[in-house]
Amino acid sequence: MFRNQYDTDVTTWSPAGRLHQVEYAMEAVKQGSAAIGLRSKTHVVLAAVNKASSELSSHQKKLFKIDNHIGIAMAGLTADGRVLSRYMRSECINHKFVYESPLPVGRLVVQVADKAQVCTQRSWKRPYGVGLLVAGLDETGPHLYQNCPSGNYFEFHAFAIGSRSQAAKTYLERKFESFMDCSKEELVRHALHAVKESLQEEELSSANCGVAIVGVGEPFVILDSKTLQAYIESLEGAKDDQATKIEVEEERNPAVIERQDVSGGGGVGVGAEGEGPSDMET
Amino acid sequence: MFRNQYDTDVTTWSPAGRLHQVEYAMEAVKQGSAAIGLRSKTHVVLAAVNKASSELSSHQKKLFKIDNHIGIAMAGLTADGRVLSRYMRSECINHKFVYESPLPVGRLVVQVADKAQVCTQRSWKRPYGVGLLVAGLDETGPHLYQNCPSGNYFEFHAFAIGSRSQAAKTYLERKFESFMDCSKEELVRHALHAVKESLQEEELSSANCGVAIVGVGEPFVILDSKTLQAYIESLEGAKDDQATKIEVEEERNPAVIERQDVSGGGGVGVGAEGEGPSDMET
Amino acid sequence: MFRNQYDTDVTTWSPAGRLHQVEYAMEAVKQGSAAIGLRSKTHVVLAAVNKASSELSSHQKKLFKIDNHIGIAMAGLTADGRVLSRYMRSECINHKFVYESPLPVGRLVVQVADKAQVCTQRSWKRPYGVGLLVAGLDETGPHLYQNCPSGNYFEFHAFAIGSRSQAAKTYLERKFESFMDCSKEELVRHALHAVKESLQEEELSSANCGVAIVGVGEPFVILDSKTLQAYIESLEGAKDDQATKIEVEEERNPAVIERQDVSGGGGVGVGAEGEGPSDMET
Amino acid sequence: MFRNQYDTDVTTWSPAGRLHQVEYAMEAVKQGSAAIGLRSKTHVVLAAVNKASSELSSHQKKLFKIDNHIGIAMAGLTADGRVLSRYMRSECINHKFVYESPLPVGRLVVQVADKAQVCTQRSWKRPYGVGLLVAGLDETGPHLYQNCPSGNYFEFHAFAIGSRSQAAKTYLERKFESFMDCSKEELVRHALHAVKESLQEEELSSANCGVAIVGVGEPFVILDSKTLQAYIESLEGAKDDQATKIEVEEERNPAVIERQDVSGGGGVGVGAEGEGPSDMET
Amino acid sequence: MFRNQYDTDVTTWSPAGRLHQVEYAMEAVKQGSAAIGLRSKTHVVLAAVNKASSELSSHQKKLFKIDNHIGIAMAGLTADGRVLSRYMRSECINHKFVYESPLPVGRLVVQVADKAQVCTQRSWKRPYGVGLLVAGLDETGPHLYQNCPSGNYFEFHAFAIGSRSQAAKTYLERKFESFMDCSKEELVRHALHAVKESLQEEELSSANCGVAIVGVGEPFVILDSKTLQAYIESLEGAKDDQATKIEVEEERNPAVIERQDVSGGGGVGVGAEGEGPSDMET
Amino acid sequence: MFRNQYDTDVTTWSPAGRLHQVEYAMEAVKQGSAAIGLRSKTHVVLAAVNKASSELSSHQKKLFKIDNHIGIAMAGLTADGRVLSRYMRSECINHKFVYESPLPVGRLVVQVADKAQVCTQRSWKRPYGVGLLVAGLDETGPHLYQNCPSGNYFEFHAFAIGSRSQAAKTYLERKFESFMDCSKEELVRHALHAVKESLQEEELSSANCGVAIVGVGEPFVILDSKTLQAYIESLEGAKDDQATKIEVEEERNPAVIERQDVSGGGGVGVGAEGEGPSDMET
Amino acid sequence: MFRNQYDTDVTTWSPAGRLHQVEYAMEAVKQGSAAIGLRSKTHVVLAAVNKASSELSSHQKKLFKIDNHIGIAMAGLTADGRVLSRYMRSECINHKFVYESPLPVGRLVVQVADKAQVCTQRSWKRPYGVGLLVAGLDETGPHLYQNCPSGNYFEFHAFAIGSRSQAAKTYLERKFESFMDCSKEELVRHALHAVKESLQEEELSSANCGVAIVGVGEPFVILDSKTLQAYIESLEGAKDDQATKIEVEEERNPAVIERQDVSGGGGVGVGAEGEGPSDMET
Repeated sequence: MFRNQYDTDVTTWSPAGRLHQVEYAMEAVKQGSAAIGLRSKTHVVLAAVNKASSELSSHQKKLFKIDNHIGIAMAGLTADGRVLSRYMRSECINHKFVYESPLPVGRLVVQVADKAQVCTQRSWKRPYGVGLLVAGLDETGPHLYQNCPSGNYFEFHAFAIGSRSQAAKTYLERKFESFMDCSKEELVRHALHAVKESLQEEELSSANCGVAIVGVGEPFVILDSKTLQAYIESLEGAKDDQATKIEVEEERNPAVIERQDVSGGGGVGVGAEGEGPSDMET
Repeated sequence: MFRNQYDTDVTTWSPAGRLHQVEYAMEAVKQGSAAIGLRSKTHVVLAAVNKASSELSSHQKKLFKIDNHIGIAMAGLTADGRVLSRYMRSECINHKFVYESPLPVGRLVVQVADKAQVCTQRSWKRPYGVGLLVAGLDETGPHLYQNCPSGNYFEFHAFAIGSRSQAAKTYLERKFESFMDCSKEELVRHALHAVKESLQEEELSSANCGVAIVGVGEPFVILDSKTLQAYIESLEGAKDDQATKIEVEEERNPAVIERQDVSGGGGVGVGAEGEGPSDMET
Repeated sequence: MFRNQYDTDVTTWSPAGRLHQVEYAMEAVKQGSAAIGLRSKTHVVLAAVNKASSELSSHQKKLFKIDNHIGIAMAGLTADGRVLSRYMRSECINHKFVYESPLPVGRLVVQVADKAQVCTQRSWKRPYGVGLLVAGLDETGPHLYQNCPSGNYFEFHAFAIGSRSQAAKTYLERKFESFMDCSKEELVRHALHAVKESLQEEELSSANCGVAIVGVGEPFVILDSKTLQAYIESLEGAKDDQATKIEVEEERNPAVIERQDVSGGGGVGVGAEGEGPSDMET
Repeated sequence: MFRNQYDTDVTTWSPAGRLHQVEYAMEAVKQGSAAIGLRSKTHVVLAAVNKASSELSSHQKKLFKIDNHIGIAMAGLTADGRVLSRYMRSECINHKFVYESPLPVGRLVVQVADKAQVCTQRSWKRPYGVGLLVAGLDETGPHLYQNCPSGNYFEFHAFAIGSRSQAAKTYLERKFESFMDCSKEELVRHALHAVKESLQEEELSSANCGVAIVGVGEPFVILDSKTLQAYIESLEGAKDDQATKIEVEEERNPAVIERQDVSGGGGVGVGAEGEGPSDMET
Repeated sequence: MFRNQYDTDVTTWSPAGRLHQVEYAMEAVKQGSAAIGLRSKTHVVLAAVNKASSELSSHQKKLFKIDNHIGIAMAGLTADGRVLSRYMRSECINHKFVYESPLPVGRLVVQVADKAQVCTQRSWKRPYGVGLLVAGLDETGPHLYQNCPSGNYFEFHAFAIGSRSQAAKTYLERKFESFMDCSKEELVRHALHAVKESLQEEELSSANCGVAIVGVGEPFVILDSKTLQAYIESLEGAKDDQATKIEVEEERNPAVIERQDVSGGGGVGVGAEGEGPSDMET
Repeated sequence: MFRNQYDTDVTTWSPAGRLHQVEYAMEAVKQGSAAIGLRSKTHVVLAAVNKASSELSSHQKKLFKIDNHIGIAMAGLTADGRVLSRYMRSECINHKFVYESPLPVGRLVVQVADKAQVCTQRSWKRPYGVGLLVAGLDETGPHLYQNCPSGNYFEFHAFAIGSRSQAAKTYLERKFESFMDCSKEELVRHALHAVKESLQEEELSSANCGVAIVGVGEPFVILDSKTLQAYIESLEGAKDDQATKIEVEEERNPAVIERQDVSGGGGVGVGAEGEGPSDMET
Repeated sequence: MFRNQYDTDVTTWSPAGRLHQVEYAMEAVKQGSAAIGLRSKTHVVLAAVNKASSELSSHQKKLFKIDNHIGIAMAGLTADGRVLSRYMRSECINHKFVYESPLPVGRLVVQVADKAQVCTQRSWKRPYGVGLLVAGLDETGPHLYQNCPSGNYFEFHAFAIGSRSQAAKTYLERKFESFMDCSKEELVRHALHAVKESLQEEELSSANCGVAIVGVGEPFVILDSKTLQAYIESLEGAKDDQATKIEVEEERNPAVIERQDVSGGGGVGVGAEGEGPSDMET
């Protein structure tokens, strides 16, 4: 406990010009299970490591659909992430209603970042303890962003956050130059390779990871476990044949999304799809 | 008292990216008497250990009806749990009024989780000290969720929370694969077996436990003590004969549920039914 | 002073999942002079030990009428109790006005409990330092509840709170199985026996205790000192003759009860009736 | 300074269930100069020890008229007492305006007590540091109450508060049984005897004490110094002859009492009448 | 620094029932340069020691006109005093506007005292650090009051506050019995004698003191330096001849006094009149 | 760090009746670069030492025009000073709009002082860290005032504030008696002499000082650097010939001054005029 | 940890008249990657060092367009800077809407400074941790300002802020006298030379720096990477031929800029243009 007197209040600067509480919140992101994103000229793929809290529970939900053209993966406190994803959905709907066009991805990312910044400058709040990878497609093409607890955001070719994400990042750094021209299927396989790196001792399966895709002409979709399993098997067979053609089952489109609804497809069962609710990942 | 300076304020992050106050609130759930939930393809059963504060008092009420299709079991500070159950009832009624259809279970669970999250990010509040098992039936079938003080929620096949819940969890983990095809009666008996595990020295009786059921075509109902006793006896006789056919007496439907009414059937007497008011379980 | 750093703020959880400030407030109830309640099939009787602050003053008022069908006894800080009783009266009047029927006892108890819970989750407040025994009669019969500073409530066959209430509780536990079929007169005598247990060195008299009754066909009434004295004498003579037929003098019905009026019959004199104002009992 | 960590904040309970800040505020009452009240069947008399802050100043005003039928004596911080007396005047006027009848004494006392209670449950306030003796006459006869900083109130036959009030209390305890049948003149003389007890080394005179009376058919009046001196002389002569017939000069009735007007007869001069403004008595 | 833990917060009582912060604020009054007041049957005279902050500046303004019939002298933080004097002017104007008669002096004094009391019972404020001598004339004659930081007020025959006021008080105590029948001129000379006592090493001159008068038929006026000098010279010559007949020049009546205007005659120059602006006197 | 516990909160009195935080704020004024003011019968001259933060930047702006008849010089935190100057401009405009006449200087000074006082009595604020010299002309002639962080103000013949202002003050004290009859040109030269005293090692030039004038028939003007340089040269030549006739270029009158506009002539360039923006002077 | 007790709260003055928290916030600016600005008679050029957080991410965005005539470069917490830039855009739009003319640069700078000052005087906030270089053109020509966390602002010929900015400043100080007559192309090259100084070990490239220009007849534009690369090559070749004629591609003009939109051209891709999102630079 020989820390300092500047690190318990988010509105207190340290003599070195640092906000320790913001840095500690970013530590929470590093404790969450890994999330990975990567991008080609036409698609963005998100992947997440699912950590089951118990044999009895479904795995944690780490991937969320925000709008037809935007989705996120999160690492850290998912309760905090849910607050942000609810805000994102609401902004997308409002924009569509007012301007009759989808909200550009970069603009949404900035709005989320500004919401996070406010929590770093009020003494009665705390910074959000969650990192987001935002995948989206708009008029300027596919995008992959990261939102931090500090109120910062970054655009990436490919990136990984969360615990043991370094191995995944190394994979991505080695390969990312080839991603731009990948097909959707190749991109998914790269994502699964990266996830594998951060799993270490665990076997990759449709149960302990999730994958989502958004691309030109394709709305954001979280792969169902059958499709995902097919990809995983193709990965092991190192084959890229037709059999793995993706048959995505888009999530049911909730006609009316109310204020607090952030559950996406609330009716997706546990056993079959492997998409359980979210967990506190620290 | 050689703890740290980061664990007295809910808005203070520890250098390791943890919110100690949230973790301490989750400790309160572990101190509460056990609550158990399990699910088949058609039914969800909740069971709770009743702890009487005195020979003179009724047992604590641990099971609450939220709507015809949803009910909860709680472990921890029941005063906090009452606040949440009141909120849940109000949301169900509002949804029914506005959309003329029951509120989907998953959506309600997210709303409760969001309400809990707010208490983890305001310096003048504290996290709720209660865990909820939410059992419900909607268009996508029966569901069993857990809501945590952290603002997280999980979907489960079967789960147990509260003090000595580990023994119950072990039972559930051993058996849960067979639950999906159980009849309602079998599910109740599994629930009672699990309760028995967490009672240890105590004898299982209709006085020290409660059971509630919701299923396809059956509204949420808390078993009256006679029906429950019949189940317990059938359990001991290891028989599953017709005699234990459940004769549930649904709780009187309160025509008008006012804002603060969370007592469910406030008129249920003490002696006969064994459903006393709730207690501080720490 | 070797306590801990978690026990000065009501919104701070201890590492063991406890709210020390709530527990300390419950200690205030134990310091108050004793209050006792017991129930038959038709009646509820409340009794309270009166502690005079001075020979010159009247005894403390411990029993309060809330509505024709509900009354309370309190132990702890009566100033806090007055705030709650004022709230209860207001809720009863509002319910009667809106629904043209008396507020069910259980519902009122829950509302009081919720009001108490709020004080355990706001940093600028403190938990109430008073315990209430609520006696009431509604469509489901007579009820006896206890409301705690923690925001919990319990239903009881019979109960005692406050200082030296253990002796009274022991008496009640020994006898409570016979209470259900007692007449009103027998119930009062049981109450007086229980009071006697907690008085210890003091002689039981109409000056140092108070008794109130509510039952089928009988509105809540606080016994005047003459009637009470007759009961006490019958107790000593162990006789149950007609002479002790109760002649209750119902408190004057205040035609208009204003917002802050919690004094009940404000005009009841000191010398004759022995119902003085309330005291700080710690 | 080896006190504890529970006694600096009014919203913090001690482990023993005490509110130290409330107890410290009651200590302030004990530091104020003494105030005395006593009651017969028809009259209530208030008396107060006047302490001059300087030879140049008038004595402190300790007695205040609230309404024609109610007056108070205070001990402790008179600045706090003035806030309460202003509130009492306002409540009396409002009641008279709305109901066209004087506010019952007991009801006013409860309202003051509730106002004091609020200051014991808000972290940004402090309990009032003043004790009030409230003398009043209503349909149920004459009343004498005490209001405490804790939010408690008591009804008394006779009482004394403030510094060295023990001697006065001893006198009152010895004599109070005879007060009920006293004439107004006898009651005043008993009050002066009690004041004398708490003056100790000082000589009783119309300069160092004040007396006020309210009774059947007689509005509340603070005795002018000539009348008071006559009483004091009759006391010494132990005579009760006609010469001491009281010639009270009622305070001028302020036609319009504005919000902040609590000065009563603001025009009463200093030298002649000996009723100076109020002082901080600690 | 061996003080106590009860003296840094104005809302914290000490175990001895004291409010240390209020007492410390009263210490600020004692640090201010002296102010003196005295009264005859027809007049009140205020006098103040002027302390120049620099040879280049005018002396501090210590005397303020509130209304035609009321004026004040202050000791302590004049910035705090200005806030109070602005409030007083506003109350006088409002009263005149509503009732078409001047505000009685005693009533104004009570309102100021109540405003000061509020600052002793809010944790985010501090008590005012200024003492006021209020001189005024109303239907009941001339009055001299003192307002304290504690929210108390006193009426006086004559009084002195501020640094080295003890010498002045001793003079006033020796002489005050003769003041009632003094002429205005004699009263001013007594005031100057008292000022002289508290000046000690300094020579009395129209530069280092100020005098103001209000009386029957004469509005409140601050003496100009020529008139004052004449008084001082007459004092030294011990003569009371016609030459010292006062030729007061009333301050220009500002036709419209806006909300924040507390400067009185803002146009009075520095060199000639010797009435500079106010200073922080601690 | 052996200070005391009374000096970190602006609402805490020290036992000696001092507000340390107010005193510390006044220390900030002493750290700012010097500002000087002086007055004749017809003119007021302000002068300020300009401290450039870098060779690349313009000098700090220390002189601000408030209205045609009022201007200020500041020492201390200019960011705080800007808030006050904006308030002053707004008050001047409002007054002109409502009363169709310029706001008297003394009245404006009092309003600023009251605004400063508020910051010394709220726990969530801090006193302003800036001292102002206010120069103005109104119906009563030219005026020179000083406003302090304490909420005090003073009128002066001549004064200097800020770092090394003592030398300037000494000069002014030696000469001020002759100022009243000085011409505008002489007054400027006296100001420059005083500035020179506080510059010490630095050479006086139009780059490191600024001068502003307001007088009878002349609106407030900040001298342009050419005029200023001419004055400086005339100073050195000790001549007072026609060549130094001032050719002032009044700042462009901003037709519409919006709420936050305090920049005066925002378009004045850097290189030529030497009037850069303001700096933090501590 | 041997600092002092005055440096954790922004509203606490140190005894030396300093606001340590403001100074610590200014330290955050020094930790950010360098930003540089310089000015000729007709143009202002901003340049910034881009620091990529990862090989996978784009470089940080340090240059932002505010309006057609204004742009900024920032150093420090870019999340804080975004809040300020959003405010600046909103002010520019409002001004254009109300007055139908562009907001003068100096006025905008003052408004930003005032917004920053507020954060230095409220206990529940913290000073912004970002420094801004503001480049703009208005009727009075081109301007270069700096905005500090302290609420101060400065106008500059040329300036550099952020880490290792001293080397750049030295370059600018050596050359700035020649800037006034530079062509746009020369100014850009000077900027690149200055950036080079602060890069030290790194090679200057269009990837690790950014340049923006605003000038007479030319709206604010951030150079695309091709144009920038051409400049860099011309720099190395020390040639100034036609080949480096700038072909700027103005950012797409967002037709509607909503409240939270601060992303400028949100659609600018990552790989090609090298303008990634912003980073936390500490």
